[in-house]
Parts: sequence; C-alpha cells; structure tokens
Amino acid sequence: MVKHNFYAGPSILPREVIEATAEAVLNLNGSGLSVLEISHRSKDFQAVIDEARSLFHELLSIPQGYTVLFLGGGASMEFCRVPFNFLKKKAAYLDTGVWAHKAIKEAKAFGEVDITASSEDKKYSYLPKNFKIPADADYLHFTTNNTVYGTEYFEDFDSPIPLVADMSSDIFSRPIDVSKYICIYGGAQKNLAPSGLSFVIVKDDALEKVDRYIPTMLNYKVHVDKESMFNTPPVLPIYSALMTLRWIKKQGGVKVMEQRAIDRAHLLYGEIDRNSMFEGTVAHEDRSRMNVRFVLKPEYQSLEGEFLKFADERGIVGIKGHRITGGFRASLYNAMPMSSVQVLVDCMKEFEKLNS
Amino acid sequence: MVKHNFYAGPSILPREVIEATAEAVLNLNGSGLSVLEISHRSKDFQAVIDEARSLFHELLSIPQGYTVLFLGGGASMEFCRVPFNFLKKKAAYLDTGVWAHKAIKEAKAFGEVDITASSEDKKYSYLPKNFKIPADADYLHFTTNNTVYGTEYFEDFDSPIPLVADMSSDIFSRPIDVSKYICIYGGAQKNLAPSGLSFVIVKDDALEKVDRYIPTMLNYKVHVDKESMFNTPPVLPIYSALMTLRWIKKQGGVKVMEQRAIDRAHLLYGEIDRNSMFEGTVAHEDRSRMNVRFVLKPEYQSLEGEFLKFADERGIVGIKGHRITGGFRASLYNAMPMSSVQVLVDCMKEFEKLNS
Repeated sequence: MVKHNFYAGPSILPREVIEATAEAVLNLNGSGLSVLEISHRSKDFQAVIDEARSLFHELLSIPQGYTVLFLGGGASMEFCRVPFNFLKKKAAYLDTGVWAHKAIKEAKAFGEVDITASSEDKKYSYLPKNFKIPADADYLHFTTNNTVYGTEYFEDFDSPIPLVADMSSDIFSRPIDVSKYICIYGGAQKNLAPSGLSFVIVKDDALEKVDRYIPTMLNYKVHVDKESMFNTPPVLPIYSALMTLRWIKKQGGVKVMEQRAIDRAHLLYGEIDRNSMFEGTVAHEDRSRMNVRFVLKPEYQSLEGEFLKFADERGIVGIKGHRITGGFRASLYNAMPMSSVQVLVDCMKEFEKLNS
Repeated sequence: MVKHNFYAGPSILPREVIEATAEAVLNLNGSGLSVLEISHRSKDFQAVIDEARSLFHELLSIPQGYTVLFLGGGASMEFCRVPFNFLKKKAAYLDTGVWAHKAIKEAKAFGEVDITASSEDKKYSYLPKNFKIPADADYLHFTTNNTVYGTEYFEDFDSPIPLVADMSSDIFSRPIDVSKYICIYGGAQKNLAPSGLSFVIVKDDALEKVDRYIPTMLNYKVHVDKESMFNTPPVLPIYSALMTLRWIKKQGGVKVMEQRAIDRAHLLYGEIDRNSMFEGTVAHEDRSRMNVRFVLKPEYQSLEGEFLKFADERGIVGIKGHRITGGFRASLYNAMPMSSVQVLVDCMKEFEKLNS
C-alpha cells in the first residue's frame, strides 16, 4: 500500500532525494565508497558541502555578509547557542508556545528576557501582532512556525532591533528578507534533510560582540571561520540536504514552494471548514500551512481512535496530534504532493458519510 | 576497482551495515517509509534505539547504574559537556596530543585543570605511564586512542578518582572495565556509524553533583531522563549503529574484534619494520591498533607523493597522514578486512622492489 506521510518531523522528503541518498549509501558518485564512510576532508564531500552552502545563498537570496553553517545537533542546541553568542544584556522573545518556551528558558540564563508578546491567554491558538518591540533589547527572537499549535507567521517583521528566528519547520516554504535577521536557524528534519543536522544563517558582523567565554563548539565564530568543519559534520544529512536543495531549485525555487504550500493548505482547511464532523483549532489568519491542526467536534469526539484507524487503513501515516494538544495534525511540508492531501480529504469525506 | 578504505574517520563500515542502511533508506522494515522520513516517536524507531542501547550494555558488559545515550553532534561537544557536568573544582587530564588539548581547553573554563602527565616532550610519540593521579581531582580524563599521533592505551587505569575517557576511535575494539569510569564518550564515525552521532555511557549517580547552571542540551541528566529523546536524535546514524552492533555480536563480540585488531596491526607494523624504505613513528609498546602511522625513511622522503599515487592506483584510499604530522596513516578499524591490510602490505613491498 502507498503511504502518505504526514509526520511532523522527521518527515516526508522528495522521493528522488530518498533514492539519490540510497544510491550514495551504496556508492557515492561511482567512487566505490559509501557516503557513510568517506572522510569529511575528501574532495567528494567538500564538493557536497560547498554546493549546499551555495544553493542556500541562491534559493534564499542571502545577502553578502552572511554565512551558512551546517552543524550537528538540532534546533534545541541553537536555543542556547543564540543567547551565548548574541545576548549582551537583554533580549526580546515572542511567546507562541512550546518551542518559544524552550528558547526562552535557555536565554534566561544569560540575561534579562523581555516577553514582548504572548498568546498564552488563548492556549496559543493565535499569534500576537502589533506588539511593541523594546528598542533597547539586543534582538527579537521568534518561532516562525509553531508545529505543536499549528500557527505560522508569514512575514519578516519591521523592527528597531535585529531579528533572530527559529525557522525549523517552514524554511524554504516562502521567500525571506534575510537582511532583517542576524540569525536564522533550524533543525533540518522538516523541509530539508533527515534528522541530526542544523542549519544556521548568521550575520558575520553580529558575532564577537559579547564578553563571556563561549565553549568552542557553541561559538558561531569558530564554525564560520572553519566553514562548518571545525569538527566532523553530519555527512549523510548534508548530502541529503544537497539533494533537496537541488530539487527545490528544479521545481522553480521558494516562490513555487510557497504557492504549493498555499494550495495544499487551502485544500485541507477547506475540507475542515466544510466537513460537519471536524473543526479547526486556530485563528483563521494564523493557520499554519505546514502543520494543520484539527479536531472532531465535541459531539463526535469519542470517534477519535476510530478516525485514526480509518485513516491508517488508507495509508495515511502520522496524523495523531501532539501529546500536548491531542486531536489531529497533518504536516504538509514542501515534499507533500497534492495527491496525498486529496487522499486525506477524501478520507474525511468518507468518514463523514459513514458516521455523521 | 575495489577500494580499500583506510580513512581515519568517517571511515570504513561493514559492507552488510552499508547495504542494510541503503535498504532502510528506500523502505524501513517493509513499512513503505524511508528511515530518513520516519518520526523518532514511531514504533519502528523506538525499537531501533531500544535495541541499540541494549546491545551497548550487552557487548561492553556495562554494569547496572549506567545509561547509554545517543546524542547529535560529535565528541567535540562532549569536551565541554564533561566539565559542565562533572567538574566541581579541579580535574586531571592526560596530555597525549590534539584531542586531549581540545578537551583540556574546554575544561579550563570550568575550574582548575591538572595536567597529570604529558608526552609533548617527544611530540606525542609515546604515552605517559606511571604518573601520579591527584586524589583531590574530580576525575581523570584521557583519550584512549590518539588518531593523529597513532598511540593507544590498552588498559583501564587503576585510579583513586573516577575515570572519564574519549573512546571515539577504539570503542568496541577491546573489552572495557566500565565500572572504573563515570563517563565514556565518543563520536560514532569510526567503529560504529556514520558521522553526526555521539555515544555517551554515563554513571547515573555521578550526575547532578555540580552547582552551576547547565544549558538544557548540555545536561546529561536531561538526556538520561528522556532516554536520548529530549530532542530529535539523529535517526539514520542510530539505525546504522544498530546494524554495526548486530554485526559485532554476530562476529563474536569485542573479544573477537580485539583479536582481529591485534592481527591487523601485527601484519602492518611487521611490514613497516621489515621494509627498508619505511619506518614507524611511535614507541613500540604504545603503537595504536586503530591508526598506524609510518613515514618514508629520510633518504626516501622525496618519494612521498609517488607512494601515495602508487597506492591510489591499487585502490588504497585515505592513507595520507594528518596535516599536523605528515607521512602516512592507515586506519584499521573493526570493519577493516585482513585482505585490505594485505593489499597495503603488498603495495609497500612492490614499492620497495621498484625504488630501493
């Protein structure tokens, strides 16, 4: 049975990325060696990381003066790297749920944290807007897409201070104005690569402004100077990332990715709003294109397990909601074909016919 | 042409590990999904990490009271995690070269560092022995195998204080008395898995003894409590690690790995000592079984490039020495077959016949 992968992350990758990776695991570029066993100092890998870096610049129109890093770990490590490297006295954070909390927790060990705005009052079902950014903070940090609550910012704020953003789950799904940021980071395991890799886009002249000692591996400047090779980087995830970046370029770039994201979201939210058994959980204007949250209406909630089973029988994988929020979550990352979204929509229609 | 992979790391893995990984990239356990795109919360992956943890315990006879962690990153991150978690006032470090230096540098930010012994006087060509371990230090840290200089400790010291060891490059190549250690760590990219993964074996009751704030991702206790799932772990490297652990078990365990390591080293060092053109660089009793360093004798040193080319033509990859030390280095990790060592030995003999 064909599987439709709606996991929130690690998550769907383009089939040609998967096939190219499998081929490289057996034999990289006809070298007779596996991508699992080549030195990161080999010519073959140097070409991989150079091209991946260069495609980041090209696809996101990254201006001069920024460096793209590929590091082991995940976004959770960046939650502490960011204040280690950028927080002098005070930082501003938007509180939009789970991931923001984790970032805020780490920052508090380094200085004052101004919670500039929060949507906690309505269980993070909307996004704060029209907040006043404190001009005396070192940066404003926010999570562009909130995988757990299903909300997403689609703009790069005008701000009197530099922006820092966790774009783990929506990088490459829309154009970004990188010049407004001193740091954009994320785990790669949504729109880019398998897990075990972080990307960081860092503004060079924003570094080395803090006085504290930074452990070597947490110091962005070290990784900038060593071009992500201070220590052995995650070779296979970077290889897969390159395959995804080539795929994005071939599809037409981030503008095309954005249109597809809009179309997928439109199809699924349309069905959620139409279907008499389901409802959305998020303010309409803040609905994430990447992670679509929905629940059964109160009168049908006893059928939750049954719907999961019904979907599973149709090859639909990974739509069980996050343990904090319950209900359902369908993640629609770049690699998700419209045909899979249609399968989920048809499944919801069929379930309605049988049960409402 | 068949390749013989002597890279120092990332490095050779058993062919069946490579093939099983390629298969899982296309379709994991017949699930219809790739190991690159499954959630770390899926049943399939939970089974993988549970079995990998359990095989660590079994193959290394890890006593009760220890936890095995699989973390993103690499040993370089552990250089700062170790003092963050264990250094109260003073720590003792053995200085045996490049990796020890890096570990020492991080520790110095956290307290007093006693350089208990060093072999810097002879360019790290031997290993300090019969040193006096300070009884008032929190732990003694050492690098069991030194990939750059080609030296290796084959024993777990008797010590008045707990041991901490970087075993990146010789884990699973001999039995270890884990009970002497509070922490054994390493990057996985030598004897275990592709790069992007660290393993840490930590003694549970040695944790939470320091007063400082530890950033969440650097706190071993967090990862112990969350069973390596505080954040998304590197799924594919852990899958490959499991394949390697199964392979080690099938071969007969670490005792068999040790005998093979001894046999491979004996064959290659034997040729180095016999051959009129080459010589070793390390005190005989400290010669590493994992990384064999050798050079051309002074009168032949102009032929270095020629020997590399000669070897390359015979499918021998990765024997160029580290940029610090020059010369040659052949890494003989667990997956290295005797037949490949024989190819290198024959190549050295042939080169001697043509050039001496």
